[in-house]
Amino acid sequence: MENLQTSSTEKQKMLKGEYYNGFEEGLLNDRKRAKKLCQQLNNIPDGSQTERSQIIKELFQTDKELWIESPFRCDYGYNIDIGENFYANFGCVILDCNLVTIGDNVKFGPNVQVYAATHPINPEERISGKEMAYPITIGDNVWIGGSSIILPGVNIGNNSVIGAGSIVTKNIPENVVAVGNPCRVLRPIK
Amino acid sequence: MENLQTSSTEKQKMLKGEYYNGFEEGLLNDRKRAKKLCQQLNNIPDGSQTERSQIIKELFQTDKELWIESPFRCDYGYNIDIGENFYANFGCVILDCNLVTIGDNVKFGPNVQVYAATHPINPEERISGKEMAYPITIGDNVWIGGSSIILPGVNIGNNSVIGAGSIVTKNIPENVVAVGNPCRVLRPIK
Amino acid sequence: MENLQTSSTEKQKMLKGEYYNGFEEGLLNDRKRAKKLCQQLNNIPDGSQTERSQIIKELFQTDKELWIESPFRCDYGYNIDIGENFYANFGCVILDCNLVTIGDNVKFGPNVQVYAATHPINPEERISGKEMAYPITIGDNVWIGGSSIILPGVNIGNNSVIGAGSIVTKNIPENVVAVGNPCRVLRPIK
Repeated sequence: MENLQTSSTEKQKMLKGEYYNGFEEGLLNDRKRAKKLCQQLNNIPDGSQTERSQIIKELFQTDKELWIESPFRCDYGYNIDIGENFYANFGCVILDCNLVTIGDNVKFGPNVQVYAATHPINPEERISGKEMAYPITIGDNVWIGGSSIILPGVNIGNNSVIGAGSIVTKNIPENVVAVGNPCRVLRPIK
Repeated sequence: MENLQTSSTEKQKMLKGEYYNGFEEGLLNDRKRAKKLCQQLNNIPDGSQTERSQIIKELFQTDKELWIESPFRCDYGYNIDIGENFYANFGCVILDCNLVTIGDNVKFGPNVQVYAATHPINPEERISGKEMAYPITIGDNVWIGGSSIILPGVNIGNNSVIGAGSIVTKNIPENVVAVGNPCRVLRPIK
Repeated sequence: MENLQTSSTEKQKMLKGEYYNGFEEGLLNDRKRAKKLCQQLNNIPDGSQTERSQIIKELFQTDKELWIESPFRCDYGYNIDIGENFYANFGCVILDCNLVTIGDNVKFGPNVQVYAATHPINPEERISGKEMAYPITIGDNVWIGGSSIILPGVNIGNNSVIGAGSIVTKNIPENVVAVGNPCRVLRPIK
């Protein structure tokens, strides 16, 4: 696939966590590419894992075998880096406007939302169209419970478990169970 | 499109916030109309903004240019009144059984849920099929974070920001950041 | 439909709440069956209730008339037992890896998530592929508010109302309004 990925200055600002214009043409085209591939993935009629796997490899530009149920949606695809043995259940959304790095053996329940994207709090700045995005990192062996939300800039440590429906606004250390809105550590995992 | 909108007495009761029967034929037909248009919108293959825009204009009976990602679902469409420069990311649901009025320059993260519809708390009344709905108003320049829920009768003031995953059960004033379940004011925006 | 349902030992362990391997071939085939039927249901073009009803009857192996809006997704279908006069709005997900028993006259708002499935908290056990599932029971006349999550092993008593966006981690008695994350009783219903 040609012209796979823009190298516009807006993209460079986006990846640096600076204000950028998400409606710049190169970024728009890259999101169109991702939307087409997500739509293909979501419309595969018989759940054929081979065909799903091919589309996911193209979308994420990876050679990993990832198991992602439909529907799945993301903004770019190429900003998502996932390890071995990943499973995401129905309805996952990843706004990968910055890097989303996911380790090995990670499980997502249904409807998990990973949002690297954000907007200015100041209304004038926000309506000017400026956006920002911050990287998200999810360690090895993590399990994110269904319908949880991971917010921009968050890191979740290895082996941790995020309870269903949690809103993860801050970093979560490794080897803990964490739950709630906002998500807080409930107990260590021994 | 003919017979666009019922003027049944059930509809009139619905819009007045009185008990009504949502399975009355006119209302059922109007919801079928909205479902067909939502399904068309959600199945557009290449993300063509022109075609999306046409369907949205018909669905909402507006001439505004609105940017709404797929999938989007609503009950009637014609009860939604949105200003200029609206953006809703993937998976928005609006149960517009009463008026849902949204100002200019409003942004919705993914999976935002706007529910004007509700049911009686008393189980006998509820299973009799009675329903109610109350209007929702979202001011200018508001940003609703992803997966937030706006409940019946709620007003959100201009410029305010609702944090991701919030459950907005009561009015939120203008110029504040508000978060949580239930959603409460966290701080003013200067 | 032949070979409708596996009777593998993995399935038997699953239904007993023991550790089981969800990628055993019989269970995989049964989930493929459910995915095909859910996809058919979700793609019906004109909202024809007759055609929807037929697919739902096959999916759940029931002769009940159930009203379930699209999209709907579940794992097996045959582990879901629903009474008369059920309504589920857009986007319901039921992970029916164990029995999900729902009474008469139950209403689900949009995006309700019912998760009988879970995983070990211990990371080594979890990445070994072991899974567990516990039955969920929802009584007669219950209303589950939109985007609520019902977790494994939970029972919700007759007539109760779960507020929108609640995370139901423990049993809820009958005749109460309960809300929040975690979901707690707010008041009795008289």
